[in-house]
Amino acid sequence: MSQNSEDAALFDVLHHVTTDSLATVLIKKGLRNQWVKGPVPLGANFPRTVGRAFTMRFIPVREDVPHAHAKKLPVNRDAVEAMPEGSIAIADARGELGAATFGDIVVYRMVKRGVAGIVTDGAVRDRAGLIASGMPIWSAGITAPPPAARLMLAAWNEPIGCGGVAVYPNDIVVADADGVVILPSGLAREVAELGAEQERLDEWQLEQVKRGVSLPDLAPMKKG
Amino acid sequence: MSQNSEDAALFDVLHHVTTDSLATVLIKKGLRNQWVKGPVPLGANFPRTVGRAFTMRFIPVREDVPHAHAKKLPVNRDAVEAMPEGSIAIADARGELGAATFGDIVVYRMVKRGVAGIVTDGAVRDRAGLIASGMPIWSAGITAPPPAARLMLAAWNEPIGCGGVAVYPNDIVVADADGVVILPSGLAREVAELGAEQERLDEWQLEQVKRGVSLPDLAPMKKG
Amino acid sequence: MSQNSEDAALFDVLHHVTTDSLATVLIKKGLRNQWVKGPVPLGANFPRTVGRAFTMRFIPVREDVPHAHAKKLPVNRDAVEAMPEGSIAIADARGELGAATFGDIVVYRMVKRGVAGIVTDGAVRDRAGLIASGMPIWSAGITAPPPAARLMLAAWNEPIGCGGVAVYPNDIVVADADGVVILPSGLAREVAELGAEQERLDEWQLEQVKRGVSLPDLAPMKKG
Amino acid sequence: MSQNSEDAALFDVLHHVTTDSLATVLIKKGLRNQWVKGPVPLGANFPRTVGRAFTMRFIPVREDVPHAHAKKLPVNRDAVEAMPEGSIAIADARGELGAATFGDIVVYRMVKRGVAGIVTDGAVRDRAGLIASGMPIWSAGITAPPPAARLMLAAWNEPIGCGGVAVYPNDIVVADADGVVILPSGLAREVAELGAEQERLDEWQLEQVKRGVSLPDLAPMKKG
Amino acid sequence: MSQNSEDAALFDVLHHVTTDSLATVLIKKGLRNQWVKGPVPLGANFPRTVGRAFTMRFIPVREDVPHAHAKKLPVNRDAVEAMPEGSIAIADARGELGAATFGDIVVYRMVKRGVAGIVTDGAVRDRAGLIASGMPIWSAGITAPPPAARLMLAAWNEPIGCGGVAVYPNDIVVADADGVVILPSGLAREVAELGAEQERLDEWQLEQVKRGVSLPDLAPMKKG
Amino acid sequence: MSQNSEDAALFDVLHHVTTDSLATVLIKKGLRNQWVKGPVPLGANFPRTVGRAFTMRFIPVREDVPHAHAKKLPVNRDAVEAMPEGSIAIADARGELGAATFGDIVVYRMVKRGVAGIVTDGAVRDRAGLIASGMPIWSAGITAPPPAARLMLAAWNEPIGCGGVAVYPNDIVVADADGVVILPSGLAREVAELGAEQERLDEWQLEQVKRGVSLPDLAPMKKG
Repeated sequence: MSQNSEDAALFDVLHHVTTDSLATVLIKKGLRNQWVKGPVPLGANFPRTVGRAFTMRFIPVREDVPHAHAKKLPVNRDAVEAMPEGSIAIADARGELGAATFGDIVVYRMVKRGVAGIVTDGAVRDRAGLIASGMPIWSAGITAPPPAARLMLAAWNEPIGCGGVAVYPNDIVVADADGVVILPSGLAREVAELGAEQERLDEWQLEQVKRGVSLPDLAPMKKG
Repeated sequence: MSQNSEDAALFDVLHHVTTDSLATVLIKKGLRNQWVKGPVPLGANFPRTVGRAFTMRFIPVREDVPHAHAKKLPVNRDAVEAMPEGSIAIADARGELGAATFGDIVVYRMVKRGVAGIVTDGAVRDRAGLIASGMPIWSAGITAPPPAARLMLAAWNEPIGCGGVAVYPNDIVVADADGVVILPSGLAREVAELGAEQERLDEWQLEQVKRGVSLPDLAPMKKG
Repeated sequence: MSQNSEDAALFDVLHHVTTDSLATVLIKKGLRNQWVKGPVPLGANFPRTVGRAFTMRFIPVREDVPHAHAKKLPVNRDAVEAMPEGSIAIADARGELGAATFGDIVVYRMVKRGVAGIVTDGAVRDRAGLIASGMPIWSAGITAPPPAARLMLAAWNEPIGCGGVAVYPNDIVVADADGVVILPSGLAREVAELGAEQERLDEWQLEQVKRGVSLPDLAPMKKG
Repeated sequence: MSQNSEDAALFDVLHHVTTDSLATVLIKKGLRNQWVKGPVPLGANFPRTVGRAFTMRFIPVREDVPHAHAKKLPVNRDAVEAMPEGSIAIADARGELGAATFGDIVVYRMVKRGVAGIVTDGAVRDRAGLIASGMPIWSAGITAPPPAARLMLAAWNEPIGCGGVAVYPNDIVVADADGVVILPSGLAREVAELGAEQERLDEWQLEQVKRGVSLPDLAPMKKG
Repeated sequence: MSQNSEDAALFDVLHHVTTDSLATVLIKKGLRNQWVKGPVPLGANFPRTVGRAFTMRFIPVREDVPHAHAKKLPVNRDAVEAMPEGSIAIADARGELGAATFGDIVVYRMVKRGVAGIVTDGAVRDRAGLIASGMPIWSAGITAPPPAARLMLAAWNEPIGCGGVAVYPNDIVVADADGVVILPSGLAREVAELGAEQERLDEWQLEQVKRGVSLPDLAPMKKG
Repeated sequence: MSQNSEDAALFDVLHHVTTDSLATVLIKKGLRNQWVKGPVPLGANFPRTVGRAFTMRFIPVREDVPHAHAKKLPVNRDAVEAMPEGSIAIADARGELGAATFGDIVVYRMVKRGVAGIVTDGAVRDRAGLIASGMPIWSAGITAPPPAARLMLAAWNEPIGCGGVAVYPNDIVVADADGVVILPSGLAREVAELGAEQERLDEWQLEQVKRGVSLPDLAPMKKG
């Protein structure tokens, strides 16, 4: 499918661009609020992870809602089965750290479905199991209680806020050691190209600095 | 319409029940998280206000979204025109105090449409104008910047979280000097009746206390 | 009783010393952390209030503790009956604003018992009733849910922390428009006297400033 | 002096423009972060207040710094004597609420010097005295301890941050019931004029709304 | 002693149950607030740790309290000598991160006494020494200052709050990579058994998921 | 230069004293607030780092300030070229985690200049690059956006606040696994010597504890 091959080319570029360079480029384009506050990588050695956003929206739990407390795998099991291969599940958990938005059984299923990564501004649980699953995960905390302790999944594939950033379904999520950056879908290609250029500029500058050039004396990089 | 006359009877009961008694009754029914954290009354003398929830969901603003910054009255003008008479507009503003979720022009229009009240876990602006409008408002802060400084209206009439509480469209919102309590739609009548009974119990106890009865000696109220 | 007449003389001095002057004097004596963070006066016109501390210690509620959820007036009814006339009830509520530490029935009983005032680093409820009771109250918030929503009274007349300050039973609590200051029992008389002197110094300085003297030219006050 | 007459004309315009309209105009000009988070008016009836910024920068207190604890009126007495008539003293207090940045003696002296107003992202003390002084004050809290409990004045007339906003000496500070907005000195005249135009637009829209026009049907205002 | 052999059997079960499963079971039993917010494991490889709670209650330091500032090992040295073998010391430090609740000398002594673990919602210090001691520790932060910088030990073996959870002396504390869960003493055996069953259910589900079963198709586990 | 040889001797002592012992000694000397709240070591194996403070002061970014958004290496490039060999750059970033105060290019240049370490109460970015540079860094967070997203460098070599502590230029900064402590310049030698003595006392006590001595029985160390 051409959509997929386009994405493959785009993601290929983005795998070589740091979230730092993307954040820098986004600010230059007038998008000043695209870095997601809160989530950090759960494991030390996750690769840079890129994918289309599969958004999930949680709200505070209410005891009278049917099945709100019934199971360890609540309504988000349906959401999981709707996640496309290669997508990144990104959850608006309202910063709640007293209940997990993802646990090991759900995550193992997501691995099976080919989900590329997970981002939540809330917490995850089953730390050991999650690491063992191999899924790259960015979360704002570790917890023990299940989602139903505090949260219900209200909807998926809606626009959400995550860590103070707007995320629309199919936006591009890029996550690495410095955190998570959201690229608006319509700007992703341009930002990726400018990001790659920014990477080259950074390397050029870094090389000079390593040779002993002072910061005010850094030579500008020739374009082209 | 029978819905309306049912509501009128229900609201009539609720106008005489404090949010304290409702919170007490809700906890006894197993609903422990129905008081909305954050919003306080903007004015000193608002009457107790009761209505069906018209939910509004805000997300962080993004500069590339068309019209996000264009106007003082952004997309929420459409939401306002959809609000039923007697409803209470309740906004999930994610606790954002650096931008208003409501200002005076919008609120004057809501007065014209017969909206009964406003609740937001964010901020409002035009304090003087809002007071002059006569609209009862519960907000978590006062601010000067317009919504577009930080927020976009993403949707309305969806389940939301507001001040840490789940709110579904058509839930009953009750607001008074002690804040805002949410009654799940299906439980509202029962809670209202138990709340009225709780009021009578409180008055009975208060009367005894004023006569000098100690707390351990308070006589139980005869039911019936 | 001589204790009482001593207290009466001490309190008489303290009724004319601002919490500002007391805080200033305490710092000079090496006590740098005696102002209680959080509580503000519930009403606009409370007089300066002085009394011996009757401490109350709340902990998070637990559902299996007998009677934790049973009543509007939980175990603190026994505490109330133990409060001496003229004391100030001061509650360590751990900053919890989602449940009240005091409501109107309890407070009316405290009025009957001659309790002089209430301080809590949590919340109170029944705002209108509390104002009507005439009890001077300093709290960190207003709420609707009863204590049992979040808190249990664990003990009274123990050393506590309130708003970041250590409070021992029988410490002197002084509360006015600028908040609440705790005087350690053993230092209270000395601090009161120094505070009264500080008041005279402030008035002397203020009088000069009103006459147009610049701050560097303020004459020192003759001790006398 | 022409500077003063220019300022007088500018301030005259600004006295009739709300901080809301200014914040709206500033965002349209690309300045998205000019509303000061935290300070609210200490009194209920302060007029809109406008003046050039006299910046003050506080840092945490250190016990070995000479005179850090010595007096109620520490080094800021020199700062006060340097404040120009008509200026607004605006303090970077780092959000510290456990010590006052201003108290009554200092403020009475500022009244004598013709200072137009006070803004702090920290606290003030001597609430009653401050209200009696007539000085319009916007602060983030009320406290009892003196500055030396937590803070030292490090410098004045330097660029500061206050409530999350950059403030340069001689920027224009506008404060009203909705809070405090900072106008960069070089943009003040243009923003004031656009603000006045925004006021007229708002009044035009409000008038229509009061006549019953719906929000989508609001007629655009003819320019000129 | 039979108490000890009972505990040994109970702890043996609990060593094989995750805090996740315990939190899930507790919620099903109606105890929704048993996960301690704040503490995380200080070291990467601590085993799951189980023991009876030895509670410690800290309050803010006060300079006039005798010995409050005198020593690196203040009054908590007496508490340490009262800790039973196999207990877990759990401290209510009020979330204070600017002073340690435990340092290396105290912890080495606790190792000698056979204390099984440490939990604090405050901070610890001497990171390297603590790791070297081998004691499993869950804390909310690392700091350098001694307890006396901010805290005093007020009491031990009293009911406390820790990280938002009620803890009574002799409650069961279970701590692992996902944090700390408190089992009320009277419910511990039942919860442990249900927790073990929950573990088997999780493993059963996980095995199916690894084989490729979708979440909605997960077969229920046969009981017994 | 004698200054340097004096510093060398002082730093030699301090390299063998923990921040814990320094914090303990400082409190005994009446300096109760010298531990910097927020910064933690970026890498696991940094040596204890000691140097004179090169202070940097950031304020919130403003869009109209020339070059505020122009470059990845904003005005702090001049600051970097002014840093003396062996100094520690310490930044007052106001706790801002949404923008970096340092990134890899700047830090590589600081390595070239012989800067001994970096402390910020804000965030850094380019985690991998920073680790690779070998520079010891203490920061309060990791982020992706460049400084210009939220911050501007306002000045250097001024008194600042960092993590709630006053820092003057040329104060001594000591950083290790337990965080960062500031020694006032004039007290550094005395504190270092007392700190070394405190270390010996701790070792003496620790040795006794390892031999099984109880805490109350710890023998006092003979002063030598």
